[in-house]
Parts: sequence; C-alpha cells; structure tokens
Amino acid sequence: MKPSKHNKQARRDNKRKKLGQQPGAVVFTGERKVEEVKIHYLEFNESTFNEQEVDNRSITSFHAPIPEYTQWYDVRGMHDTELIEEFGKVFNIHPLALEDIADTTQRPKLDEYPNGIMISLRALHFDQETRKMSYEQVAIYLGDAFLVSFQESETDLFADIRQRVREEKGRVRKKGADYLAYALMDVVTDRYYLVIDEVEIAIEQIEAAILKDADRELKGQIHDLKQEMLLARRSIAPLREVVGGFDRLSNNMVTDDTLVYLRDLRDHVVQVTDLVETYRDMLNSLHDLYLSELSFRMNNVMQVLTIISTIFIPLGFFTGLYGMNFEYIPELSWPNGYFYLLSIMGVMVLGMLWYFQRKKWF
Amino acid sequence: MKPSKHNKQARRDNKRKKLGQQPGAVVFTGERKVEEVKIHYLEFNESTFNEQEVDNRSITSFHAPIPEYTQWYDVRGMHDTELIEEFGKVFNIHPLALEDIADTTQRPKLDEYPNGIMISLRALHFDQETRKMSYEQVAIYLGDAFLVSFQESETDLFADIRQRVREEKGRVRKKGADYLAYALMDVVTDRYYLVIDEVEIAIEQIEAAILKDADRELKGQIHDLKQEMLLARRSIAPLREVVGGFDRLSNNMVTDDTLVYLRDLRDHVVQVTDLVETYRDMLNSLHDLYLSELSFRMNNVMQVLTIISTIFIPLGFFTGLYGMNFEYIPELSWPNGYFYLLSIMGVMVLGMLWYFQRKKWF
Amino acid sequence: MKPSKHNKQARRDNKRKKLGQQPGAVVFTGERKVEEVKIHYLEFNESTFNEQEVDNRSITSFHAPIPEYTQWYDVRGMHDTELIEEFGKVFNIHPLALEDIADTTQRPKLDEYPNGIMISLRALHFDQETRKMSYEQVAIYLGDAFLVSFQESETDLFADIRQRVREEKGRVRKKGADYLAYALMDVVTDRYYLVIDEVEIAIEQIEAAILKDADRELKGQIHDLKQEMLLARRSIAPLREVVGGFDRLSNNMVTDDTLVYLRDLRDHVVQVTDLVETYRDMLNSLHDLYLSELSFRMNNVMQVLTIISTIFIPLGFFTGLYGMNFEYIPELSWPNGYFYLLSIMGVMVLGMLWYFQRKKWF
Amino acid sequence: MKPSKHNKQARRDNKRKKLGQQPGAVVFTGERKVEEVKIHYLEFNESTFNEQEVDNRSITSFHAPIPEYTQWYDVRGMHDTELIEEFGKVFNIHPLALEDIADTTQRPKLDEYPNGIMISLRALHFDQETRKMSYEQVAIYLGDAFLVSFQESETDLFADIRQRVREEKGRVRKKGADYLAYALMDVVTDRYYLVIDEVEIAIEQIEAAILKDADRELKGQIHDLKQEMLLARRSIAPLREVVGGFDRLSNNMVTDDTLVYLRDLRDHVVQVTDLVETYRDMLNSLHDLYLSELSFRMNNVMQVLTIISTIFIPLGFFTGLYGMNFEYIPELSWPNGYFYLLSIMGVMVLGMLWYFQRKKWF
Amino acid sequence: MKPSKHNKQARRDNKRKKLGQQPGAVVFTGERKVEEVKIHYLEFNESTFNEQEVDNRSITSFHAPIPEYTQWYDVRGMHDTELIEEFGKVFNIHPLALEDIADTTQRPKLDEYPNGIMISLRALHFDQETRKMSYEQVAIYLGDAFLVSFQESETDLFADIRQRVREEKGRVRKKGADYLAYALMDVVTDRYYLVIDEVEIAIEQIEAAILKDADRELKGQIHDLKQEMLLARRSIAPLREVVGGFDRLSNNMVTDDTLVYLRDLRDHVVQVTDLVETYRDMLNSLHDLYLSELSFRMNNVMQVLTIISTIFIPLGFFTGLYGMNFEYIPELSWPNGYFYLLSIMGVMVLGMLWYFQRKKWF
Repeated sequence: MKPSKHNKQARRDNKRKKLGQQPGAVVFTGERKVEEVKIHYLEFNESTFNEQEVDNRSITSFHAPIPEYTQWYDVRGMHDTELIEEFGKVFNIHPLALEDIADTTQRPKLDEYPNGIMISLRALHFDQETRKMSYEQVAIYLGDAFLVSFQESETDLFADIRQRVREEKGRVRKKGADYLAYALMDVVTDRYYLVIDEVEIAIEQIEAAILKDADRELKGQIHDLKQEMLLARRSIAPLREVVGGFDRLSNNMVTDDTLVYLRDLRDHVVQVTDLVETYRDMLNSLHDLYLSELSFRMNNVMQVLTIISTIFIPLGFFTGLYGMNFEYIPELSWPNGYFYLLSIMGVMVLGMLWYFQRKKWF
Repeated sequence: MKPSKHNKQARRDNKRKKLGQQPGAVVFTGERKVEEVKIHYLEFNESTFNEQEVDNRSITSFHAPIPEYTQWYDVRGMHDTELIEEFGKVFNIHPLALEDIADTTQRPKLDEYPNGIMISLRALHFDQETRKMSYEQVAIYLGDAFLVSFQESETDLFADIRQRVREEKGRVRKKGADYLAYALMDVVTDRYYLVIDEVEIAIEQIEAAILKDADRELKGQIHDLKQEMLLARRSIAPLREVVGGFDRLSNNMVTDDTLVYLRDLRDHVVQVTDLVETYRDMLNSLHDLYLSELSFRMNNVMQVLTIISTIFIPLGFFTGLYGMNFEYIPELSWPNGYFYLLSIMGVMVLGMLWYFQRKKWF
Repeated sequence: MKPSKHNKQARRDNKRKKLGQQPGAVVFTGERKVEEVKIHYLEFNESTFNEQEVDNRSITSFHAPIPEYTQWYDVRGMHDTELIEEFGKVFNIHPLALEDIADTTQRPKLDEYPNGIMISLRALHFDQETRKMSYEQVAIYLGDAFLVSFQESETDLFADIRQRVREEKGRVRKKGADYLAYALMDVVTDRYYLVIDEVEIAIEQIEAAILKDADRELKGQIHDLKQEMLLARRSIAPLREVVGGFDRLSNNMVTDDTLVYLRDLRDHVVQVTDLVETYRDMLNSLHDLYLSELSFRMNNVMQVLTIISTIFIPLGFFTGLYGMNFEYIPELSWPNGYFYLLSIMGVMVLGMLWYFQRKKWF
Repeated sequence: MKPSKHNKQARRDNKRKKLGQQPGAVVFTGERKVEEVKIHYLEFNESTFNEQEVDNRSITSFHAPIPEYTQWYDVRGMHDTELIEEFGKVFNIHPLALEDIADTTQRPKLDEYPNGIMISLRALHFDQETRKMSYEQVAIYLGDAFLVSFQESETDLFADIRQRVREEKGRVRKKGADYLAYALMDVVTDRYYLVIDEVEIAIEQIEAAILKDADRELKGQIHDLKQEMLLARRSIAPLREVVGGFDRLSNNMVTDDTLVYLRDLRDHVVQVTDLVETYRDMLNSLHDLYLSELSFRMNNVMQVLTIISTIFIPLGFFTGLYGMNFEYIPELSWPNGYFYLLSIMGVMVLGMLWYFQRKKWF
Repeated sequence: MKPSKHNKQARRDNKRKKLGQQPGAVVFTGERKVEEVKIHYLEFNESTFNEQEVDNRSITSFHAPIPEYTQWYDVRGMHDTELIEEFGKVFNIHPLALEDIADTTQRPKLDEYPNGIMISLRALHFDQETRKMSYEQVAIYLGDAFLVSFQESETDLFADIRQRVREEKGRVRKKGADYLAYALMDVVTDRYYLVIDEVEIAIEQIEAAILKDADRELKGQIHDLKQEMLLARRSIAPLREVVGGFDRLSNNMVTDDTLVYLRDLRDHVVQVTDLVETYRDMLNSLHDLYLSELSFRMNNVMQVLTIISTIFIPLGFFTGLYGMNFEYIPELSWPNGYFYLLSIMGVMVLGMLWYFQRKKWF
C-alpha cells in the first residue's frame, strides 16, 4: 500500500499524461510500487492442477486458452503496460478494458464486452497509527474459462485463494472461472470489514478523548477521519452497482449457481456501505460534541472570570474611594470607618455569592 | 442481551476469524451468551400438538420432516456451529444460509433458496438506566412445512407464540409454517415500539433538563442517544426490504392469506423506521437547542461582566486620579471636592444604567 | 382533541397492552375522550334520505346492507372495541382492518381487502395559544354501498358533510359511497391548510421577535415548533401514498368519476406536504438567524467591554503609578505634573478612540 | 404584483372561506387586484385575424367555438367567479378545473380532463429594492381549438404574444392552440431567468458587504433571501412535472410538433430549478461566511482585550502594592526604588509582548 | 476563457435581450471573445483527407454534404448568429437547435431531432492563481455523416483531434461522425480531471493553512471554492444524462460500436461528478475545521485572560485595601504587616495556580 501524500502527486502527474492520449490508450496512472512484475499462473479443473511462476516475456508463446481447464493469471504490479497490451492480444481483450486495467484512478466498475467481463475494484487499507486510509487498485478480467487478475502492489491479497486451489479446499476447484472471480471479489470485500473496524476503534478513541480533554489535535483528527471516510465511500459505494451488474449481464459467462454467491456478496457490500454512512454520521456527531465541549468550557471560563470580576471590581472601587487624597473626606476620620467598610464589603460579597448561586453559576 | 462495550470487541474478534474463511463457512461471530444450547421442538396441525425439549445430539436421528404436520425447532444459543451444520444436513439448507445464521453481525435480510427462505433480523433492547441499546440476532429458516428459529441469547422472545400454539389460541395452529414465520417476525417488530417509546422518554427528559440547566452531561447524553439511534436505524431500516421481499418470492411457500398479514407487518416496519428518523431529527434539534442555550447563557454572563466593568472601571479611574500623590492637585483642596466627585460619579452611574436599560441588557 | 403530554403517556400504556396480543386483536390504543359512543346513521340515494341516531346495542339487529341505498355509519368515539367487532361481524370486515380502526397510533394508510377498503388518516389541530399540535385518528371503512367512519373524539368533523347530504347540496347524494369517502378525506385534508396557516403566523411572530429581541423563550419556541412540524410531517406525508393508492386498487369499488376527484385531492396533499417541508426549512433558517443574532450581540457586548477596558485600564495604571508612596518620585514634585499627566491621558484616549473608530467598533 | 405582507393575510382569509365549501366550488382565494376584469378576445388562423376587447356580460351570447379558427380569451383579473363559471358553461369545463382557476394559492400543476387540459403556473417578480419576491397565479385552459388564459393582475404578461399574433410574426399564427399554450408558458418561464439574475446580484452584494463589514442588517437579509428562495422553489420546481406531463397525455390535443418545443421548455425549467437550488446552497454558504466573520472578529476583539488586560493588570498590582500605607515597606525608602520598579515593569511588558507575538495574537 | 466578473454581467445582459424573443430565435448570450470567427473544415474517410480554413461567407456555396465522406466543421467563436443560421439552412437544422448553439448559458443537454443530434456541454477551466473557475460553452451538432462543433473562444480544445485525423492516428479516421462526436466529448471530459486536481491542491493548501494559522482570508477562500464547486457541479452533473441519452436515441445515427465508447465516457462523467460531490463535502468539513480552530483559540485567549484576571484582581483588592487613608487601620502599624500580606498573597496565587492546573487550563 502506498503513502498517501507522495502517492497523490504521482497519480495526478500520471493521470495528466494520460489525458492527452486517445481513448483506449494503455497508460499506467499510479505510482510504480514493485520492482518487477510477478505473475502466478494456475491451471486447474476438479481433478488436475498446475502452477507456475511465469516470466514476463514468455506469456504469449505457450499459454493459449486450453479447453477443460480454468486458467488464472495472477499479476502483481501494473506499471508494465506492454505486458498488459500483450495480454490484450493473446486473449483478445477490448482496448477500453486494457485502458481501465492500467488506470489506477479508476472508479470501481463492471463492464461487459462481447467476450469478457472487466471488473475493477479497490482494496482498502487503514493504518491505525497514522489513521490514514490508502487503497490499491484491483482489476479482474473474466473471460471464457480464464481469468486475469491485476494487483497494484506486492501485498499478496489472493494468496489464500491460491492456497485453496492448491489444496482442493472449498468449492473453487469444482466451479469455473466465474466462481473464482466471485472468490477474489469476496476477499477484497472482506477486508473492508477490517478497515471499518479500525475506523470504529479510532472513533471510540476520539470520543473518549473529547470527553476527557477537548484539545487541539482532536479537531484535526476528526477532520482527517472524515476525509478518509469520503475516500472509503468513493471506493466502496460503487461496488453495489458492480455486484448488482452481474444480474444484468447479457452473456452467460456467469452461472446461476455463482449468482447466488454474488447476491450474498452484494449483501455484504450493502452492509459495508451502510456502515461507512453510519460512521460518517458518527463523525459529524463527534464534531458537534467537540464544539459543544468547547462552548461548554468557554462558558465555564467566562463564569469564573465574571464571578471574580463582579465581586472584586466593586470592592476595588471602594478601596480606591477611600484611598483618595482629598483634604476633607469625613468617613476617613470616623474611628471605626475601616471596620464599617469591611462589614459593608462582606455583605456585598455575600449578596453576590447568593446571586450567583441562584443563577447556578457554580 | 449483551453489554455494549465488551460485546463489540468480541464481535470484532470473531468477525476477523471469519474473514479468512471461504464463503459458506459456518463461523459464530457473536459472544457466547448461553452455557448450553436449548432446543424446543413443536409439531402441530389444527387438531394435534406435540412438544419436546430436544437434546443437542439426538436431532438427526428422529425428526425427519413429517407430512401434514408443521414442525418448529426453536433454538436458543448460536455458538454451537456443529449443531447448525447438522440442521443443514437434515433439512438440506444452502451453505450460505447456514453461514448467515451463525453470523450475528449480519444485516437484516431475506434470502430465497431453492427449497427455503432465510430471514435474519435483530431484536432490539434499550436499557433506560444506561440509555444503551443492544441487539440480538434472530435467524429464521422457513422450509416446506418446517421452520427453524435461532436466537442468540436465553431471553425467550418466542415464549408467547409457543404458548399460543399449545393453547390453540389464535390462528397459528390453523395456518402453516409461513404464518408462524410471520408471527415470529411480528413479535420482534412489536418490541421496536417499546424501544422507541423508551427513546422518546429519554428525549423528553433531556429536553426538560436542557431548559432547566444545560450542564456538561447533557451533551454527552445527546451524542450517545444519536449513536444509539444510528444503531437502531441500521437494525430496523433493512427490514422494509426484508418484509417487502415476501411479495417478490418466486417459490410459493408463502400463501396469499399470510401475505395480507405480512403487508400489515410492513406497515409497522415503515412506521417504526419513520419514528426512528423522526427521533434522529429531534435529537439534532436538541443539540441545536443545547448550543443555543449555551450561547444564550454566555451572552448573559458577558452582559453581567460588561455592565459591572463598564460602571466600575471608569469610577475606579477617578478614585485613582485623586489618590495620586502629586504635590499640586488643585481639586484635592476644594472644601467639597469629595462630595462634588461623588455626585459626578452618581450621575455617571445613572447615565450608564440608562444606556444599558435602553440596550435591553437587563 | 387531546392535551399532548398526558395523552402521550396514555398512548404508550395502551400500545404496550396491545403488543402482547396476537395480530388482529382489536385493542383501543388511545385515551378515552368521549363518555358515550355516538353513532349517526344515514341512508340515502339521489331521491330518498333517512337519518337516525343509532343506539350502540341495536346495530346488528336492523341495519343489514340495503340495495340501492348508500349507508353511512358516522361513529364518534373509538374506545368501545366490542362495537367495532360487531361492525366487523355484520359487514364482514377483515380482523386486521378492525385492529387498525382501534389503533389510534396508526400511521395513515390505505389497505385493500377482498370486500372493502380501509383508510386511516389523521385530523390535525394546532393550538395557536400553546403552539401545540394535536391529532385525532380518523378511520374510514368503505364497503360495497356502505361506509363506516370512526372519529376519536366528539369534535364533529363531518357535520358539514351530513348537512350537505340532508339538504341535497352538491354531488354527494347523486354519487355513491366512494365519493362520500372522498368527501370525508377532503374535509380532513382541508383542515391541514388551517394548521399550516397557524404555523406560518407563529413563524412570522417568532421571526419578528428575534429581530427585536433574541430572548430565552424564543429558542424554546423554535425548537417546539420544529418538533410539531415533525409530527405534522409524519401525519401528512404518508397521505400521498394513501390517496395515490386508489389508482392501484384491484377491485372496482371506486369509479373513474371519483378518481378524478381523488387526483385533485392528491394534489392538495402534495401541496400541504410541500408546505410542511418549506416551513421546516424556514424553522431551521430561523434557528440560524437566532444564533447569528446572539453572536452579533455578543460581539457588540464584547466590543463595549473591550473599549472601556482598553481605555481605562492603562489610564488606571498611570494613576496607580503616581499614587505610590516611594520617597523619591521626581514627577510628583513638578509644579504642573498633574496637568501634564492629564494631557498625556487625554491624548491616549483620543488615540484609542481613533483606533476603534478605524476598526469600526462603534 | 402584490405586496407580500398584506397579500398573505388576504390569501389566508380567502382560503379559509373556501375550505368550508364542497369540492368544485369556484372561490377566489386571492386579493382583488384589478377594478374591472379585462378580456382580450383573438380569433385567428394562418390567413385571418380578428381582435376584440370583450365585455364581461356578452361572452356567452356570441363566441361559441368556431371551426377552423383558433380562439384565445386572454382574461386579466380573477375575482369575478361568475365569469369563470360562465366560461365553464360555454366551453364545458370540468368543475374542478374551474375551482383551480380561481384558486390563486394553487401549486403549479397540469390536469387532463376529457375535453381539455388545465395548466396552472406562477409568474414570479423580484423587487430588487425590497428584495421581496411576489408571484401571480396564471391559469391556462387549453381546449379543442380554443384557449382561455387567466392572469391575476393587470401586468400584461402576454402583450408580446398578442402582438406576434397580430403581426403574423413567428410560428404562433401557423400553429394551433397547443402551440399558443406553449408560447404562454414560455413567456412565464423566461421571466424566471430575470428573477434568478436579480437574486444573483443580491447575493453578490451581500457577499461583498459581509467581507467589508458584517453588520446587523446582513443576517436579516440572508435570512429573507433564503425565505424568498423557498418560495421560488415551491413555484418553479413543480413545473418540471407540469411540462413533463404533456408527454403523458392520453388525448391528442398536443401535436408532436409542439411537443418538441415543450421538451425545450422542460430543459429551461430544469435549468431554472437547478439555479434555484444552487442559489439556496450559496445562501447557506453565505450564512456560514457571516458566522465565520463574526467569530473571527470576536476573536480579534478578545485578543485586544486580553493583551491590554494581561499587560496592565499585573502592572496595576505593583503600583497598588507600593501605594499601600503600611508603616514599614522597605522598598519605598530605597533611593532608586521608583526607577527599579519602572525597569522591572518595562521588562515584564517586553516579555509579554514577546509571548503574544509568538502566539501570533497581533 | 473569460474573466468571471465582467463576463457575468455581459451574460445577464445578453440573456435579457433574448428573453423578449420568440422561441427559436438565434441570440448570442455570451460575451464576444474572438475578433473573427474561425472555421476549420475537414473531410475524411479511411483513405482520403482534406483540410481547409474556410471563409465565413463562402460556406453555403461549395460544401453541401458529400457521400462517403465524414465532414467536420470546427467553428471557434459563436457571436456570429448569421453564420449559425446559414449552417441551419445548409444542413437543415431545427431552429431550437440553432437557438441552443448560440445560447452560452445553456445547461449541458442532448436533444434529438429528426435528422440530427444536438449536444451542448461546458469546458471548465480553473485558474490556480485566483482560484476562479470559468467555463466555455461547447456545442456539437451531429448529423448524418457530418458534424459541426462550436467553441466560444479561441482556446483550441480540439487541435489534438484534428491532428489525429490528419496523421491517421487512432480510430477516428476509420469510424464515422458519431465516433468523432464521442472523441470531442471525451476531450472536454478529460479536462475536468485537471480542474478537479487543481481544486484538490487548493483544498490541501487551505487545510494546511488553517491548521497553521486560521486567518481572515481563509474563510473567504473556503467560501469562494464552495461557490466554484457549485458552478462545477452545475456544469458536470447534467452530463450524466447527456451521455446516458445516447442509449435512448430513437434514430440510428450512433453505432453500437461507438456506444461502447460512450458508456466508458459515462463512467468518467460519473467519476468526476462523484469527485465534485466529495470535494464539496470536504469543503464543508474544512469550514467546520476553521470554526473549530477559531473556537479553540478563543477558548485559549479567554483562559489566559481569566487566569491573569483571577490572579491579579483579588490581589489588587488587597493592595487597594491597605492603600486607604482611614485614620485607624490597625494592620498598617503592625511591624511586619507588609510581609504578612505578601505571604498571604503568595499563598493565594499558589492556590489559584493549583486550581487552574487541576482544570487543565494550562
């Protein structure tokens, strides 16, 4: 996953390069995150299984589609646009699909082409330390009995799935490439729950901190988390449409059996989207709480100031009055003048305290 | 029902365990709340009725579906995933349905499978003492002439229904498993009104308290209630879809007669959802009221401070002036200088009081 | 109409009693508002007309449906659930419809049953004195050539309609029970305009009051009106669906001719709903205005305090300086020291006044 | 156009009168704005043209529908409900349509009747001086080859159109009554742009004023403009439906050719609605700006106060200290005590200035 | 691109001129931005290519539609309404389409006419210096094998496309006028990403600035950016409908092949609209942050003031007390009175510091 700041600039720059190009041009818009592109090749059916780490250059030569096998190319690293274009030639992929694979700023979407389905989605990562969210573009091209998946970085999201294929665990070996596509999307979606959990923890921490001490950092933290949730929403919300799109496909690449699983996935996506909205509402409520807390404290501070001022400023007037140097001030020569004044002052103070008490100022 | 804090962490942990698993894996994501799973078994038709407390291990052996009877397994406790898987085998339930039964973080939903309908919903509980909302997952699997219901805890939500079945009260004996499913959902929904009532009472208390004294706890209370309402919304709002989903079923497990009752239930759900939204709006309005109250008080406090300062600070200047030790200050030797000054001060005070009166500062 | 506070508690209590019951149980959830249930019975067609005040107990005996007549039972008072159940038996009304009639907490709705249509709506009342809104449940059951209407209290909403029927004024005599149902709903809807008008007047009063003097009561009043508008919305908004529902009826109880009138009614409902939303927006804007006004005043108050303090505190320092009792303070013995100081102070004051003037503080 | 305040009360009163009446009663709910109702009668086809100012009483006698002519009655003044009822009789207009014509509080709408189309809309006027919006009800009844238009006041909105008919300019002569209806609606819609422009100018003025000096009037102005925009929205937004309604007409009174123009009109309405929403958002943003400005100034004011107080209050303490009359205060008799103290004070002031500088308080 | 302020006024004036006109009148509503209208004429098919800079006056004479060629008139400058009307005559364009071409205040839209499709959209430009957004109207009329594009200013948006046509790069030569229309829209849409990027940079700058120092300019900047985003939304959001409209065309001017590209374009538009909404949310959050920052500082300022006042005002009272000139004040003659008092004062100060420490005021 990538550091948020530097990454943003790289994306902007690459995106700009792309804008001048004609539609269908394959331009990598992300930041190069891996030295060398890695390709895992798996071919399997219910009984057989082969695995290979493929060399970049040798793809075209020997891996044409093989009947009765499901083929899966699991590519990590997207910067090698030539490679992507080669995939395009071998598997006859539409240029717009190739363009979308390389575009890491792509909004999650599902596109149906005459001979395949292009799915792009985003894996999210939340760093509890810095409370920064980052995302990684994942592209899945589902063809007839083959699937090519692209990940932006080396974080091997799909290792578990490969393991299941190897060990013949679960349904993935028995079912075709469409179920595999579902399984990959399921892995990405499951990670959202982790992210959401981290956010929940962060919200709870901030909430506790506000009620303990509304200090300066907190408001920045609330603001930052809000921004991160906007990013999360942009990454997750379009997935509803994506997963829902499988029901509206006009080709029959996806079996009814897999559609049952995809509907379950849609429920998950709806739930996560729901949670994101809920946490955005919570963050707004947190900001309200923060402002209330500040207002409340301000009130308290001002009450202290006012009580002190209201009590002592009038007293100060009296001491000033009898500190004057007029030649004739009769009270000054009264024998008990000083004590009379002290008594009057005492009464004033008590009166004011009673007044503030009644006003519930302390 | 479970304590909110500890429970959250348990859920998170269990959920995480689940995320690594393949789809359809039956993983309990809640917190174990009962020692021993309890199963009530009822079989009945209009004329006959049998009841049994079933032992965990003996299910598979003797309770295969029986024609002309409605069978109801009322399970309390969800942590025994093996039991759930056994149910799955006996009644031929889809693995995704089994997964949803055990997942206590499940959003309320309705899923149709070839031979059954899976309904999951949430029973809410509001503790007026702590003003905390908690929920309990309820799963209902409706098959052909049988129904299995799962509750998370020992709170026996469905005791009333069992009693009605026993005593032949109401329609539940005459009608089939679909009506029973309706009756169970109705019980859960009716409880929402109680929760909403408690919230209404809490809102009224806070409202009264703000107008009496906008103290520190109140803003926390408003914030907490807001959070609880977010939870309530997430639990209740999806029910609209769930109940509406019965109208769109493709199999004919639910009779037209029961659909009339389900439409009535949908009206209830819509009303409760409406109320939740209304109370959220009210809580926002309460927060506005709280802030206004604080602002208003601040204004009052500042006016008192300003009046006192404006009156006494200038007077203090004069007393200071004639308290100076210059060798030659002519006024000091005027015979009535002191009284002249007192008069001038009196006029100043009256002038200021008139000014503040005109500005409506008191 | 009922007093808001006491009434709420009664409703809650009655509602709770109901929740334990099975679906279709007829339980009165309101507060008993009339001593004795009153029933007006009217039977009429274009040429004939009969009217009777019916005794509670004698209904069943003699008023079975009569061909070629429109029958209208106008019932005031809903607490007599036995009576409602008798109506149910005589006219063969579905138990869920009977339950809805007696439930005064019912959300406005339209339900179609095989042999009739159940409409429930709410008559609103706004007390300009206390600015409290209250509502009364109105239930209309429209059967084949008969109509039963229920009002919660003695306020005779439908007196005008009965008068029109008596005097053969308007279309109501010529047309059937469906037009009568429309006429009753029209009466209830027309009253909404009155309520809205009262709210508009209240808003104008508050608006004027804020700009004159933003005192403490106003913020409570804005808050209260907001709450009342939430109630109004909950009562009025569902009516859109209700009236729209007539277009989707599957039986032919409502003629095309009456549908034209019902569409006109829908326009009214849409307009009122619109107005309710508008006034809610206005109340939010009023709250903003109130807060601005408070902020503005606070600014003014603080400016006064700051001006006074900034002018006199430094002056006070100088008077203090020369009020010290050091044995050697050279200035004190200058012949015109006092006047020099006065001049310096004058210059300082003028300088500050010029500074504040430039800052537009007064 | 009418003055907002007085007008509102008149409307309320007239509306109330109407509410007691039966549906279809023709009651004028506005404020009488013209002495005498004026009727322009035009009959024309592509080659011929006749114009007449018709007397109120003589309509019925001679102007029955004439084949091969388009007839247009352009009525200014709506208070003469008898006249409207006469139109109803001559042209066989549905009573609900007549009711809507006379109801000046009518929400813009389109109603289709068996033999005609009733359109009601609102012409807006914005007075830049008082920044008040006012509206005038316009009703158009489009029959088979005839059209009756009603305006509330004497402002002759349709003079341009009559002129075009007279001079055979544009398409209006060649095309039928349906195109004429379009042309009239187009005139009303075009005026919305003028209103929106005026609002835009007002917003720009307020914006500039806030940044120059956030004085008291501004917040009232923002609030007022918001209210006016709510009125504008209520007047304009329903027009979308109205114009869209032409596409869903079941009779064939409107030709496909005119529908092209009506779709263009719909685009205009959508654009204006858009603009109204945009300006409402801008006004909300203006209010935020105003509050920020106030807060910012408050901060500045408080900083000045705090700086002055923090510098001089401690200094004042020292002068007070050495102004005390204790018999033995050693410092007072130090030869350079006074100058030592002055130096210490100077250091304190410099220290504080440095501290405030670092805190960026000035 | 045009300066925002002056431009607005020009638009308003021109728009007003237009409002008096009959529908279909071709009136230029913008501000004249080019001296001389420039027309590039290109005709091409897969093998041939001709280019010409056409003189205004000579269009009609020689460029009638030519079979087997795609014709493209690329017009820069819109003020010459006679020219537009001539295009209308030669290519038989509907008057409403001509009106829309000349109206630079036009909302983006797609209109289908019997023999052509009219598309209007807006090219956005963001000036990072002044942070002002400006837009330029772009109109595209797509006929059968020809296309006319109009740009408001001299900024040659379509130079790249012309270059591609010339050099036979990309698909544009092989495909027809419909693909060309897509390509032009794609160019305009791609520029939105640049604008959005600039806005993102501006937001980041403001965010950093607030956290460093919440000064006066910032709140104006936030407000301005919000306004600009409103403009962006108004320009971009309707494009969804425009691009979506191609799927609903009833004529077959656009091939299925091009529709695939247009769907890709729609995804881009959806993404940009999404981003605009996200940045609006961010700006609202920024405003909240700004207010929090101000509140927070105010709190700090007030705490300083209160601490200073609370410590020194009571001390000042004591110094005043013993500065009085009563003849008999016993403490004054105590030998160590002065030191006793200093000690008491010291204790008071320490007590207060402890109190403030406990309250976390510093």
